[in-house]
Amino acid sequence: MKICIIGSSGHFHYALRGFKSNWKIVAIAPGSKGEDVTPLKKALSEMNITPNEYKSYQEMLDREKPDVVVVNTVFNANSRILCESLSRRIHTFVEKPIATSFEELEKIKKLFGTVKNEVFFAAMFGLRYKPHFLTAKALLDGGEIGQIRLLNTQKSYKLGKRPEFYRRRDTYGGTILWVGIHAIDWINWFTQKGFLNVYATHSRISNNGHGELESTALCHFVLEQEIFASISIDYLRPNAAPTHDDDRVRIVGTRGIIEVFENRVLLLNDKGENYIPLLPEKQIFSEFLSQIDGTGSCMVTPYDSILATEIALLARESADTGRVIQVCQNH
Amino acid sequence: MKICIIGSSGHFHYALRGFKSNWKIVAIAPGSKGEDVTPLKKALSEMNITPNEYKSYQEMLDREKPDVVVVNTVFNANSRILCESLSRRIHTFVEKPIATSFEELEKIKKLFGTVKNEVFFAAMFGLRYKPHFLTAKALLDGGEIGQIRLLNTQKSYKLGKRPEFYRRRDTYGGTILWVGIHAIDWINWFTQKGFLNVYATHSRISNNGHGELESTALCHFVLEQEIFASISIDYLRPNAAPTHDDDRVRIVGTRGIIEVFENRVLLLNDKGENYIPLLPEKQIFSEFLSQIDGTGSCMVTPYDSILATEIALLARESADTGRVIQVCQNH
Repeated sequence: MKICIIGSSGHFHYALRGFKSNWKIVAIAPGSKGEDVTPLKKALSEMNITPNEYKSYQEMLDREKPDVVVVNTVFNANSRILCESLSRRIHTFVEKPIATSFEELEKIKKLFGTVKNEVFFAAMFGLRYKPHFLTAKALLDGGEIGQIRLLNTQKSYKLGKRPEFYRRRDTYGGTILWVGIHAIDWINWFTQKGFLNVYATHSRISNNGHGELESTALCHFVLEQEIFASISIDYLRPNAAPTHDDDRVRIVGTRGIIEVFENRVLLLNDKGENYIPLLPEKQIFSEFLSQIDGTGSCMVTPYDSILATEIALLARESADTGRVIQVCQNH
Repeated sequence: MKICIIGSSGHFHYALRGFKSNWKIVAIAPGSKGEDVTPLKKALSEMNITPNEYKSYQEMLDREKPDVVVVNTVFNANSRILCESLSRRIHTFVEKPIATSFEELEKIKKLFGTVKNEVFFAAMFGLRYKPHFLTAKALLDGGEIGQIRLLNTQKSYKLGKRPEFYRRRDTYGGTILWVGIHAIDWINWFTQKGFLNVYATHSRISNNGHGELESTALCHFVLEQEIFASISIDYLRPNAAPTHDDDRVRIVGTRGIIEVFENRVLLLNDKGENYIPLLPEKQIFSEFLSQIDGTGSCMVTPYDSILATEIALLARESADTGRVIQVCQNH
């Protein structure tokens, strides 16, 4: 079973950590003009993998005929490549967001509708597979806090110095799309409820010379059954902080509260306040491959990947326009 | 110097903890028809204070001619009494919100404009005086995190069984007005920036039989300079929780982050991540009396009291209507 990797600008490490012995990474190629694939080559070399190298990913796909392709190039190009790989009936593990415009997302939805019985894809929502998130999900599913009423989520990153393409909306997509989308996926995954409307704001002030990149954002969602959810996003985590990111979730239910922070899980309910032993980490790409070879199923579905991207696009539109946006229920 | 207390339905304890030896609590009265003032009488009796008792607060004010009146009756009646005391030129320490409708607030603003050189009032924003909040404010003023860009605040309470008047919007005012207003005051106090617009949602689902009381709410503010602020509000804190409330603030600045939680203050900036020794607690009513007798000044001003009430009313209106509300800059 053969894997090709396109691009070196996103989370290709998920594929390297999760790939299985009966699979082989056979070839790599850049996904965008001038994209530097050195980081990918270096990581593969450290694993003693020497793939074929192509300049054109189309040529690579035509010649290698892989079973699976991993797509992580400059963010605005991922959707085009996803469409090409799905058209070729190649299962695709693709960087999130799967599209940076509504038009691209519509193309994917339409195309996937015609090929969904032959091919699978999933966006790189690898954070779900961390021990603390898996544990929180298990507590929710176990009924430990009753019905969810309110969620507060947080994505806080160090900014550092980002590649040039982060500085332009047309190549980067925006901070709600690139960073906030993870929290949108958590909210979808945890609640399993439809999003009804979205209000968001974002700002480029104090982005340390990163052009159009938004350094702060705040999102406010209403879901079915009057469930509310917030996302606080910032790139202002100080350099001296002990970790790159500070992901948090607080889930308020009718019979308790779950908090995920510092990679731990705190459960507060009528049994008191307790840190919960963590479930073991899993690998999203292993699950993805299991879905393909029929030995298992992938928690992140094409539907989840489309949904989180659509909600992120709507949140960005809200932030760009200042309006509350209704979510069309046509998924 | 003489103090009268009207009502027993709010935070009269602030007055009992903060009153000074050269002041005397001379009389009490209910502020609303049928209001039970037993809790107030009991607390005074434990301090060996035996005030005169009146059935009519108007008669009390006319006869006792106090220098200061403390007002904390059923929430919708506080604004009317505040107008009466200000008209009599009696300095007033009044429960927040100072009004539960725009019409009442307009009356207070208009009246105060005519008497402001003769009389002072402040709302019961006593949380500012807690060691953790004073410490956070001192860090901000000391420039420890640079310019504020983003604030996430939280009010989480145990619901328990509340008095009957909490169950009706017309007597309770709403959860954003009663609970969220504290966080609005923190945001105003910390940032010293104008509020530009407001979006909020609230829900009565799972309020454990409390009629119209909203059990959850989420508020989203845009302030000057594209500063964003959120408030998460809930009455779903489990009975088994170690404290009644779980107040939190996270303030993200251009050079660091301050967090207030569990009554502690964590500062993260280029000096690393450190818990900060707390400043001593202060008493809002002591400061209020110092303002009156000319020995000091009260941190909570009439302007702050009006502002927080106005923003809370706008947030409630947003939540009732689903619209983003612009804040008129006519303060």
